[in-house]
Amino acid sequence: MVLEISLCLPLPASPVVGCRAPRLCGYKGLDVIDIKWNEQGLIPAIVQDAQSGAVLMLAHMNEEALRLTLVTGETHFWSRSRQALWHKGATSGNVQRVREVRVDCDADTILLKVDPAGPACHTGEYSCFYRSLTSNE
Amino acid sequence: MVLEISLCLPLPASPVVGCRAPRLCGYKGLDVIDIKWNEQGLIPAIVQDAQSGAVLMLAHMNEEALRLTLVTGETHFWSRSRQALWHKGATSGNVQRVREVRVDCDADTILLKVDPAGPACHTGEYSCFYRSLTSNE
Repeated sequence: MVLEISLCLPLPASPVVGCRAPRLCGYKGLDVIDIKWNEQGLIPAIVQDAQSGAVLMLAHMNEEALRLTLVTGETHFWSRSRQALWHKGATSGNVQRVREVRVDCDADTILLKVDPAGPACHTGEYSCFYRSLTSNE
Repeated sequence: MVLEISLCLPLPASPVVGCRAPRLCGYKGLDVIDIKWNEQGLIPAIVQDAQSGAVLMLAHMNEEALRLTLVTGETHFWSRSRQALWHKGATSGNVQRVREVRVDCDADTILLKVDPAGPACHTGEYSCFYRSLTSNE
């Protein structure tokens, strides 16, 4: 399934001013990269803090969530438990401003580099990966 | 499904010498964390460079892959395409030495912090996420 996106992603670091050509103002090749959605029409998305490099969470996107993420510049996901679109931080205020969207070699995983406005985890932890299996930190 | 692991993970930075108690030498609570395997008996595992913080790849583990990863200190996965256990780097030499294993709040995603011996990607790229959708870098 090819996702065609013609809008520019308003990157926080460089607001889209005088945007002329799509390739110059925020996205690259989404129209030519054939995203591999899984059987449920979803793709896993890793969320990473653009500043610290910490991995914050893993969530899933459907086509609409990816489109909204690119158009609004804030992360949107598909909640598999609630079977609904989910604008991260819509209620808590802990939105994630998107700095970059990357895709892996197989085009079956997305990497989102974000500036988080608050904790990523519903527990209140900065990252969902707050438990280590291999150290006592 | 509770995975009981009683062996120590030989962390590269601190080789297990004089290892006495499991809780002091490499893992924490795998026996009490109820890993949530999906319908296929798998859990997604994010692989991150322990030094640079770069996200290298996303792969999947079954119970045996996680056990082997913890026991050997090198990443093992379950290849969904080949339907076989996969010791990363076994043929290429690009093994990933595990520095830390973390689990997320829902216990349905693993984060592996590794020292990679070479490129993570089968294309020869350092990271599988070498394509950006949002910049021309």
